[in-house]
Amino acid sequence: METKEISRAVIKRLPRYYRYLGELLEEGVERISSNELSEKMRVTASQIRQDLNNFGGFGQQGYGYNVKYLYEEIGKILGLDEIHPMIILGAGNLGQALANYGDFEKRGFKLVGIFDVNPVLEGISVRGIEIQMVSCLPKFLKERKVEIAILTLPKSKAAEMAEVLVQNKIKAIWNFAHIDLNTPEDVIVENVHLSESLMTLSYNLSKYQKEHTQQ
Amino acid sequence: METKEISRAVIKRLPRYYRYLGELLEEGVERISSNELSEKMRVTASQIRQDLNNFGGFGQQGYGYNVKYLYEEIGKILGLDEIHPMIILGAGNLGQALANYGDFEKRGFKLVGIFDVNPVLEGISVRGIEIQMVSCLPKFLKERKVEIAILTLPKSKAAEMAEVLVQNKIKAIWNFAHIDLNTPEDVIVENVHLSESLMTLSYNLSKYQKEHTQQ
Repeated sequence: METKEISRAVIKRLPRYYRYLGELLEEGVERISSNELSEKMRVTASQIRQDLNNFGGFGQQGYGYNVKYLYEEIGKILGLDEIHPMIILGAGNLGQALANYGDFEKRGFKLVGIFDVNPVLEGISVRGIEIQMVSCLPKFLKERKVEIAILTLPKSKAAEMAEVLVQNKIKAIWNFAHIDLNTPEDVIVENVHLSESLMTLSYNLSKYQKEHTQQ
Repeated sequence: METKEISRAVIKRLPRYYRYLGELLEEGVERISSNELSEKMRVTASQIRQDLNNFGGFGQQGYGYNVKYLYEEIGKILGLDEIHPMIILGAGNLGQALANYGDFEKRGFKLVGIFDVNPVLEGISVRGIEIQMVSCLPKFLKERKVEIAILTLPKSKAAEMAEVLVQNKIKAIWNFAHIDLNTPEDVIVENVHLSESLMTLSYNLSKYQKEHTQQ
């Protein structure tokens, strides 16, 4: 498949298509029109057609979409047809929550290591994987194939660890630390800034309350 | 302050300004020009000026921004000058991670209750708050003032619980469940779909790898 420049907005919507198609598949639905999918997902049918046209279409006039085929094709676009070995840096509550999230593994995100800075955690198993100290990280990365590193360490440690990751040729960082990482351009970083998400909620709540007190 | 329609993109950037200003404040910086702030945050100075002009400006020609004042004003815009009582539904790893995140409380997000469906968790304390069963939720919401509910329950329970929240006049839901909630328009929902974030990372990684294998 040709890779052309797809807008970030479209890419952000793909996982949502994937989720809905997965649910349809579980329900035994074999095909669906863009209108039906549109109603379910609450986006316009033309948006769906436009989005999917970025990847060559997939739909057939008068038939709609074959759910299984579309699910699998979107999965391929999202890179879910391959195994992505990943590690977690930071074995606190959040790191353990992510380690225990079984759905990731089903989609090819295979957890191969967990690291922390706290000696108290050393050797404790999470989903059968023993927590190691971050001092073991460089050696681990030289011996094992790792594509994705999940960064759930506190801000103070995260920047330093990101450097170690980059030096050891990690290609992608899923960053939960409350910091903007300073990484080279060829390292893919996806941020989850939870505080910022909560503040967005708080902004909308305050705005709503102000508007409704004024009336 | 007047509330006018501010674009979602600007709102999304406000918490980041707030974070950087908080760091400057900690470093003892009293004032900063939009150029300096621009370099630090890696956005253009004109974007910063434009963004802040949405709220009336704050800057003074030839002086720049007063860091403390701007920090506090953005805090007010984000609703961080008020206490927002909140509860967590779902006391698994993720719920506990969020409960233990002390920074939320510092910004006015005050945890007042934790609920789960699993009887094994009943009575266990997280940060001094005993986990209760969700069957106690309606009574709790009638007696206590709660603004925000954090939903970290599995998908299968989340939709049902969202209904209970809406019936009991919860105004804002921070949704971590892998589902789009079906709530009335006046309920503010902010979604954190972790799987979708990981898939976006995976898409970018796959795309990068395909492009660099082809060469």
